[in-house]
Order: sequence, then C-alpha cells, then structure tokens
Amino acid sequence: MTATLQPPRPDATRTRAPSRIIIEGVTPQIDAGRFPIKRTEGESVVVGADVFAEGHDVIRAVLRHRFGDEPWVETPMTPLGNDRWEASFTLDRIGRFSYTVEAWVDRFASWRDEVSKKAGAGQDIASELLEGAEIVRQASSRAEGHAVRWLAERADAIGGDGGQAHRTSLALDPQLAELMDRFPDRSGGHRFEPTLEVIVDPVLARFGAWYEMFPRSAATEPGRHGTFRDVEARLPYIAGMGFDILYLPPIHPIGRSFRKGPNNTLTPGPGDPGSPWAIGAPEGGHRDVHPELGTMADFDRLVAAARDHGLKIALDIAFQCSPDHPYVREHPEWFRHRPDGTIKYAENPPKKYQDIYPLEFDGPDWKGLYEELRDVFLHWIDHGVTVFRVDNPHTKPFRFWDWCLAEVKRRCPEAIFLSEAFTRPKLMKRLAKGGFTQSYTYFTWRNDKRGLTEYLTELTTTECREYMRPNFFANTPDILHEYLQTGGPAAFKVRLVLAATMAAAYGIYGPPFEQCVGTPIRPGSEEYLDSEKYQVRYWNLNAPGNLTGLIVRVNQIRRQHPALQSDGSLRFHHIDNDALIAYSKTTPDRSDVILVVVNLDPFHTQTGWTFLDLEELGVHGGGPFTVHDLISDARYHWDGPANFVMLDPHHMPAHIFHVSR
Amino acid sequence: MTATLQPPRPDATRTRAPSRIIIEGVTPQIDAGRFPIKRTEGESVVVGADVFAEGHDVIRAVLRHRFGDEPWVETPMTPLGNDRWEASFTLDRIGRFSYTVEAWVDRFASWRDEVSKKAGAGQDIASELLEGAEIVRQASSRAEGHAVRWLAERADAIGGDGGQAHRTSLALDPQLAELMDRFPDRSGGHRFEPTLEVIVDPVLARFGAWYEMFPRSAATEPGRHGTFRDVEARLPYIAGMGFDILYLPPIHPIGRSFRKGPNNTLTPGPGDPGSPWAIGAPEGGHRDVHPELGTMADFDRLVAAARDHGLKIALDIAFQCSPDHPYVREHPEWFRHRPDGTIKYAENPPKKYQDIYPLEFDGPDWKGLYEELRDVFLHWIDHGVTVFRVDNPHTKPFRFWDWCLAEVKRRCPEAIFLSEAFTRPKLMKRLAKGGFTQSYTYFTWRNDKRGLTEYLTELTTTECREYMRPNFFANTPDILHEYLQTGGPAAFKVRLVLAATMAAAYGIYGPPFEQCVGTPIRPGSEEYLDSEKYQVRYWNLNAPGNLTGLIVRVNQIRRQHPALQSDGSLRFHHIDNDALIAYSKTTPDRSDVILVVVNLDPFHTQTGWTFLDLEELGVHGGGPFTVHDLISDARYHWDGPANFVMLDPHHMPAHIFHVSR
Repeated sequence: MTATLQPPRPDATRTRAPSRIIIEGVTPQIDAGRFPIKRTEGESVVVGADVFAEGHDVIRAVLRHRFGDEPWVETPMTPLGNDRWEASFTLDRIGRFSYTVEAWVDRFASWRDEVSKKAGAGQDIASELLEGAEIVRQASSRAEGHAVRWLAERADAIGGDGGQAHRTSLALDPQLAELMDRFPDRSGGHRFEPTLEVIVDPVLARFGAWYEMFPRSAATEPGRHGTFRDVEARLPYIAGMGFDILYLPPIHPIGRSFRKGPNNTLTPGPGDPGSPWAIGAPEGGHRDVHPELGTMADFDRLVAAARDHGLKIALDIAFQCSPDHPYVREHPEWFRHRPDGTIKYAENPPKKYQDIYPLEFDGPDWKGLYEELRDVFLHWIDHGVTVFRVDNPHTKPFRFWDWCLAEVKRRCPEAIFLSEAFTRPKLMKRLAKGGFTQSYTYFTWRNDKRGLTEYLTELTTTECREYMRPNFFANTPDILHEYLQTGGPAAFKVRLVLAATMAAAYGIYGPPFEQCVGTPIRPGSEEYLDSEKYQVRYWNLNAPGNLTGLIVRVNQIRRQHPALQSDGSLRFHHIDNDALIAYSKTTPDRSDVILVVVNLDPFHTQTGWTFLDLEELGVHGGGPFTVHDLISDARYHWDGPANFVMLDPHHMPAHIFHVSR
Repeated sequence: MTATLQPPRPDATRTRAPSRIIIEGVTPQIDAGRFPIKRTEGESVVVGADVFAEGHDVIRAVLRHRFGDEPWVETPMTPLGNDRWEASFTLDRIGRFSYTVEAWVDRFASWRDEVSKKAGAGQDIASELLEGAEIVRQASSRAEGHAVRWLAERADAIGGDGGQAHRTSLALDPQLAELMDRFPDRSGGHRFEPTLEVIVDPVLARFGAWYEMFPRSAATEPGRHGTFRDVEARLPYIAGMGFDILYLPPIHPIGRSFRKGPNNTLTPGPGDPGSPWAIGAPEGGHRDVHPELGTMADFDRLVAAARDHGLKIALDIAFQCSPDHPYVREHPEWFRHRPDGTIKYAENPPKKYQDIYPLEFDGPDWKGLYEELRDVFLHWIDHGVTVFRVDNPHTKPFRFWDWCLAEVKRRCPEAIFLSEAFTRPKLMKRLAKGGFTQSYTYFTWRNDKRGLTEYLTELTTTECREYMRPNFFANTPDILHEYLQTGGPAAFKVRLVLAATMAAAYGIYGPPFEQCVGTPIRPGSEEYLDSEKYQVRYWNLNAPGNLTGLIVRVNQIRRQHPALQSDGSLRFHHIDNDALIAYSKTTPDRSDVILVVVNLDPFHTQTGWTFLDLEELGVHGGGPFTVHDLISDARYHWDGPANFVMLDPHHMPAHIFHVSR
C-alpha cells in the first residue's frame, strides 16, 4: 500500500507537547546523512529504523520516499521485533531519491486493543465506548468522500444508547478499523531528520566489463599512428569479447615541452609521441582531440559506432596540464606561480615532473576553475560520452569533487565516474562518498587467498558497500603486477576469472592482457617495458596463445548469470588448501547460484576438499546437487559440503560452477 | 601544549575556495552528536579523528575543548598512522564540556619539508627561498610581541642576497620552525561540526555501592512504624558495611483510596500502611514527607547525619499519583479524563490499578506539568538530595526526560539519576542517552556464564559504554530471582561478588539481602512474601547467618582497588567449566589488576583450569606471578595461563584475586 498523503508537519508549533515517538538507528545511512548511499536503476532500498514510544500504545510507521522534488510516497513499515521496523522502496528511475521515516501513536488502534481486552474479560466498557465514539468522530472530520458520513454515523452508534454488546461489535468491526487506518491522526507524530538520500545510477555503474586501450596503437599495420577510425575498426573485436565499455586514455593534444621519450626517458626523438597525460598543446586542451587521432567528427563517429556495437566510450579525465596547454596562456591564475614568475611544475621532491603543471584549486579564481573543469565533463557529455575514468582524483581537493560531480550528475544523472585513486584507504573511501560512481581498488596487489578474502570481505560486508563500488582491473598501463610478470598465461587466466567473478564491474588493459604480455621495464618494477604510455605500439590481434576465447566465455557467463551482476552476495567457502580459493555469488532468491573455485598457484596442479556453506548455495538440507562448470561444460554430482577439486593451471586454473539441485 | 587561541572561523566567507581538509570519524560520538557522552570528574576523553587532505602537504590538527561557555582550549593532535589522529583532554570539573577537532594545511612545514629534500639533493632552491621568505613575512604580520620583528628580519635574511647555503640554514633553523608553529596560518582550515559534548558527573556516578531500605521498617523493635530518626540510628550499620548511597523508596504521604493490603491484596485493614508508590494524600504530595516517618526537619537531619557518615541519601522519584494527591484537586488538567468526567486510573487491560493515576504528559498544560516535575527534583535538591532513583521512566515520554534532566543538571550539575527501567533494550538505551546518569540492567536475570558474558560484553565493549552506566542491583523489592529463592546463602554470596566486581556501581536491597531472605509470595513469582512494599517489617540486624562480614570485605576491596572502580576494562578469561566464570578488571597502566573467579553453582564444589590472557593481566611474557585472594587472604603462585581452581559454594563461592608479579 502506498499513498501520496502529505500530512501536516508534526511539532510545527510549540503549543503541543514534544512528540512521544522516537525514531533512531535509521539504515542505510552514511555519516549521519552527510553523504548519499548508492544504488542502480531497478534496485530497491530496504530501510530499517528503531521506532518506539513510552508505554504500550500501538505505533504506526511509514517509510517516505520521493524522486527529486516530486510528492512523497509512503509505504507502511513492518515491525520485526525488538522495536525494529522495516520497509523498502524501488528505484524506478536514474537520479536522486530522498527517504525518511515517520511514525505516530495510533490512538484508535490503541483504544481498540484496550477495548477488546476488556470486553474479552467481561468488564463494563461504557466509558470506553464513549471515548471511542469521540475518536471516530474526530476521524470523520479528517475524512474525505463518503467516509465522512459513514464515520460520523458509526461514532453516533458507538456512543449511542444501543446495547453494550452491539456497540462493542460496532466498535471492533474490522471495516471501521480499515477506514480509521485511511484517515490517521498523525498529530503528535515524529519524522526522522535529516532526510537521507540515494543516488540511482544506471545498471552499468554496478555491472559492466571494461576494456582499456590506446587509440594510437590501434593501427592495423606496424609503424603507423592509430586513429579513431582504427579504433572504430576494432570495435567488433572488443564487443565480440563481450565488453560493455571501451575506455580510452586521454585523447587530447599532447604537450611538447619536456616531452617524455620511450620508457619514460627525458630525451625524446623528434618522432616520439609523448605521454597522453601531458595534456594540452597549441592545438588545444581538455575539450579538444589530438590531431593525429583524427577530428572531433571522427570521435563523434566512433562514439556512435560504439553505441551500435553495444559499447560505451569512457574517457580519461586528467585535470593537469602540459606547459603548452591553452589554460597556461589564457588563465595563468589557475596555476601556482613561483616568486620568479614561472609556473610551478609537478614535483615529489627531489623528483621533478617538468612536463606537468598542476592546477591550483586554492587560487583567487577558484570559482572560474571549478566551473571550467565541470564544463569539461559537460563538453564530452554533449559529445555522447557519459562514462569517465578520472585520473588521480586524490591529488585534487575532495570538496571540489563533491561539488563538481554533483553538478554534472544534476545535468546528466546517468554519468558514471570511475575514481582512479590508488592511495590510502580513507582517501579512497572519501572520494567514493563524495560522488564517484566506481572506484579502483587494491585488487591488483591482492594475489593470495588471505589477502583476497580479507579485502573482499571488507568491500562487500562493511558499511562501504553502501557507497563504494569496486571496479577490479586485472592490469592497467601503470600496474603490471609481479604475479603476471612471472606466472605466464595461467596467471592471466587466474586474474581474469577472479576479477570478472569477484566484482560485477571489472576491466582489463588490452591487448597486453589478452596477449599475456608480462615483461616489465626492469626487474622489480610494475611498469611495462616499451609502455604505450610513451610510444606507439602495434598489436597483432591474432597472435597465438591469446586469451580471447576465455574472455569471450567469461563475459558470456557474466551476462547469463545475474548472480555475478552485483557484489553484495559474495561469500567465501572453506577449502583445505591455501592455494585454492572458493567463493559464491547468488541472487537474493537463490534462483541463480554461482560457485567459483580458483587455483591461485599458476605453476602447479592443486587439489583440495571444499567445506561448502550449503545454505548459502541454496542447497537446503544438504542432499545431492549438481555443479556445472560453465567454462569446461563438465558436470559433477556432489553431495554434502565436502567435495574434491583438482585444478591444473596449465590447462584451466578455475571452475565457474552453476549450482543446482 | 595548550593555548586559548580563537582563530577566525574557516569558510566564513565564500570568497575563498572550500577547505581542502577533511575531518571525519570523530570519536567518541553518539548518534552524530545528538547526545553527549558521559564521564566522571578527573577522567579524560580520548578523541580520535580521521584527518587528511589531498596531496602531500603537512597537516596540523588540534583537539578543541571548553567547559560551558568558557574560552576554547586547544591540544595538538598526534597522527597515529592510516590518517588517524588523536589527543585527549582532562575533565577537571563537574558539568558540561564541548569538544571538536580543527585542522589545517601547514604551509610553512610543507615548504620546509620540500626545501630540506631539495637542498639535501643538492638542487638549486633560489626560488624556494623567496617563497619561504614570503611565508615567514606573512607570519610576522600575524605574530605578537618580539616575534613580529624577529620573523620580519628572518624573512628578509632568507629572501636576501646572502649565500644560498647560509639562507638555507636560516630557513631550516628549528627555532624558526618553533616560532612559525606559534603563529599558524589557519586560513583554509576546517573545523568539525557539530560540536560534541560530554557530561561530567561526580565520581559517585561511576563508582558507588548502594543500599536500599524501607524507612518504615527501620524501627528497633517489632510492631512500630519506623521513622527518619530510626534510619538515622541505622546509619552506622550501613556506612559500616561500606556503602556510599542510602536509597529510600518514596517517603511521601501515601494515598488511602484503593490502598493495597499486605501481599498486594485489595482488602487492607485499617492499620495497613499502603504502598509508598501510591503517592499523595491530604497531607501532601511529591514535595512532602509521610507524617509517620517524621517531619521535613527530621528528614533534613537525616540527610546531614548521613553526610557525616560519608553517605548520600538517594530518593525514589515516582511520577504518579494516588487519587488523593493534591495535584488531582489543584491540577485536574494534568490527568486524563474519561467521558464520564472521572480520571483514568492506571491499567494494563484487563488489569486495573485503581490506586494510581498516571500523569497525562500530552495534555493542554503540558508545560505546567513539565515545570512542576522539574521543580520536584529541585525541591529535594534544596533539601540536600542530589541522587535520585527514578521509578519507571519508560512509562513517561522520552523527550520529557531529555528536557527535565538537562534542566535539573543545568542548575545542579552533580545530580545523579538512576533509571529504573526494566524494559526493552532500545528503550533502556534511549533513556541513558537522554540524560540518565545510571541505568538498572538485566543483571538480576543473568545467572549463567553465557548470559553474563554476553551481556557484560555488550555493556562494556560496545558504543553504549559511552553513555550507559550499569548499576547492578543484586535484588530489589520487586525482583527476588529464582536463583536467590533456591540457592541459599551461597547464591547470595555469588550474586554479591558478581554485582560488586562486575559493575563499579552496584546495590543491594536490605536487610533482606544480607539476611538471605529468599521466600517468594508464591512459587514462580519474583515478589517477596510479606513484601515491605505493602507492610511494615521488623528486621533483627544481628540475625545469625547474615552476610554483613562478606559485604564489609567486598566493599573494602572495591575501595582499595581502583581496577574495580570503572567498567571499561572488564575482560572475560576462559575457564574450562561452564559453572565457573573468570574475568578481570585493570587500571589502564596495569598498576592494579583484579582477577575474579566465581562458582555459579550454589550447590556443588566445582573445579576447573583457567586459560588466562596474561597480557591483559599485565603478566607480560608469561612467567610466574602471584594471585592474592582478597577475601580469604590466601596467596597462590601461578605460572602461565593454565591454573587450577576449586570453589566450594558452601564455604566461599568466589576468589577476588589481586594479581602481581
């Protein structure tokens, strides 16, 4: 039952006593309502609250929610025991919903309860009936339509001179109770404050597979600088692997001053293209495209072609400038100046990054800078881009993001922002609270069972699950983990399956990923040798030994199995070998149950016995069940929690089981 | 280092960029600062906060606190790692303190850090020195006294034309850093909101032994109604047992209408005294004393005599009226009327309590009623009473208590209110949040190891420890638990030791407790037979088999051992017999360590092996240690966590060990 009643605000005047109703412990709630929780379209919010008053009166509580500034919608809350109440509402649109809880003492229900007990005990209730008549009469004055008269007549009858048995039955009549419920007396009620909020993002914010690639390396033959047209030609390859988002590093003009050479050297040759993160040149800045990639029209064409392939283009927004950026000339006040008049370049003393000028967010024209940076997002939104990977947000003020992301979402509620912050835990969480839709994580550095279990348990079971959505990249142009450097193709398979099944949002940086490229610039470094960050690379997509077949299969499994499309249900199961990890994801109704077992050792075959939580897997009461490996298509008939598993990493280091009775 | 600086409020104007500083996770904090935490005089508050900004600048954070409206005092906070900061302040007075956290980017320290790294790497820092000179010059304009000139001169020297090595050493001079610390530039800083509060109560609110008795049963010979003078004569007995508070059930005139007879019968004889909770008669109401107990002058004399014995008198404040209460005549609007004009008596349908009229807190003159009830407390405060046991607070509106207790504490900060609410957990906690100083608990119903362990763990380790202080009554006139009914003197000893060592605040209802009175009115009831609630009793204080010797000893131990004077350090230790329970309390510095082992089985000798957490007991690195039983004076030499214990309940069911090396 929902209604759009707008009852008068309780406690609006001090002429009545403070409300007897207490509402506290409202969940979900982040930092006392300072930040919204997050959901995606079609999901719901289950709201809980402690609601009570002194004494034994009957209490009613409603969950109130609304979209934007629309009228409030109310849903009755259900008492769960121990003064806890609950109700939920569904998020049928992308945007921002508000919610709160209101409750009041139901005088009629309390009175009805009293009268039925007394009548049941055979007590004289003459006075009680007169009281009830008055309560019903007051309801008549609040009522509408035919109920006005019906209630007035019923009040007269209950308070009239009929027999007490007859009047009692009129008073306890369920039809009366139902009508009284429709016209409640909420005076003396209470509403929880502050009003809480939930940001509703598109489903893609929760569930999506990302593919990162450098457009300049998209040429179909070696030695040529790739273009947007080349990327367009590659769309069937990317969409064919089952990806949802194609994410491009910065596509803007690249600075020339202090340009970096191959392998991050300071001595580039004349033909070296520089780093795409050194943004800005005479050809333009953050709103422009690098001429060697093509024109803005080419980019628009790419966005449209991607859409036809079911792909969204994600852009990398890196708020920093090369010394050649137009901002430097047009808005010197947006940079920090040294006493000698030069602009301060980026530093991590004693290291210097002379190719980068950081923006000065505390400067005199901070408002102008804030607005310009917001407009950069809006500019690309005008070009059909709604997904942004934001570079190093933790080096810009948190309150800038609070403002900027809210501003952009206000104009484009479907916008998605992925926070590329690899920094301390509290900073990463604060960025997520402040409006980032998804967050990079420590996943790349969690390669053993204990590390994965602890980290995933934190992400999926603690408060941060309400506002921080992990996006598990298996590699990035900056992070080639030692595990991938040393583990060969098996290691890539392991990390692919882990990323894609542990996190509903995951990504890879290709083609190096699918081609199992594992050579670092030097031992001990996580940087790629001959990184695309500093040079154009040519990739033969048909190189032997690539993992595209497995990627296709894994992304198919993800799309076919709703259990893998959100993260809250992740649970670990015991398995008696530390090289093996077992975990499950399920839909809330257990109609889809996925159990994954991975051999984390890329070198050796490992065997072990599971000890499964069968209730979690929907196998109630134990008994035989089937696990169907969606990778190999093999089926096993298991019984009870203990089952034998053997995984040879050189063949396939993982099972992705669909569990059924 | 503390100072009473009052820096200008950050973010006071929108002409500067939002602060870069984030402050969150401030602890302790109850419901986002809606309720104060509690402490006692002389204790301190350790305040923690997550404080950070983007980037790598040096941050400073201070804890700010103040008493009432006095100037703020600041204490530098220390970073603990992981962006957590901490500082503490001491509560040197009874009353209300506020606290919050402020932080800012220390531009000079950040600059100094940068310069020392660059200088260390041999880089040219000409420009940096000019920057530093400007920072120091600005500090000079904020400085006071001789520092103004000193800093100006130093700025000139750093920015001057001396050699770079010399200017660098002037810049990095620790004396300069110290002076710069004294005149920080806090613009761009941030202050946490809302300001949090702590209520500081007298030590007695945390640590005290309560003795409850009925004055009317205090006569020294059978058959006579006891008086305040009789109570006065009993003070040496009570003080001699080591109690701190003498708590008296209501001392007001007792109503005659529907008076209760012995054993809660409805047919009193003419000489039956009625229940003291049926408050009010022609002789007066809540501000008056029952004539048979004596005069107000007698009461004042009792209060003074108690003080001379080191005892405080606690009164029972029960906001309800007999039909004969003066309020009924003078303020009929403070009661709820039935349609026939009569006043509604108390009911729990179908049960009727016609001797009691509840007050109507929602009536038209709710303000008048609120004020009168506040004034009842103030009236008794004028008569020297500052400790109140409040009867059934959970049957009055929570927001009435929020208001009333704050009002009374504002006038009398040392007032102590014990909440006599035996109801659902969340209601009990809400009363504690709302201002009750201490709370009755479920202790009387926790008689086995698991129940005690779980309950005490909740009380002493979860958030409620910040606002709810348990007072463990071993019995009350309403609660004679089956354990005491069936367990004989051993059961009384067990419950005495548990109450007195688990909770720094505890109490007994005597003389029934010390005389091991365990007869219920009927089997299955927790009511006493021939309860003093309805009749006058005579007690021979020298009755054989009484527990006064043990009570004296236990209260001595409590006073001699600070470990037992607060509850936060309570920890349970494993012992391999469910009839035995082991727990410890310690001072924070482990200078006093008490280990208690109790045999919960009042019938049989029980033996077991402990598995002690030796670190918790201050026995670092294991090794031999001594446990000295403060009840029996026996000493045992133990070694390691495993030690044998045997307790015969018919002799003494508990060890209270002092632990030392």
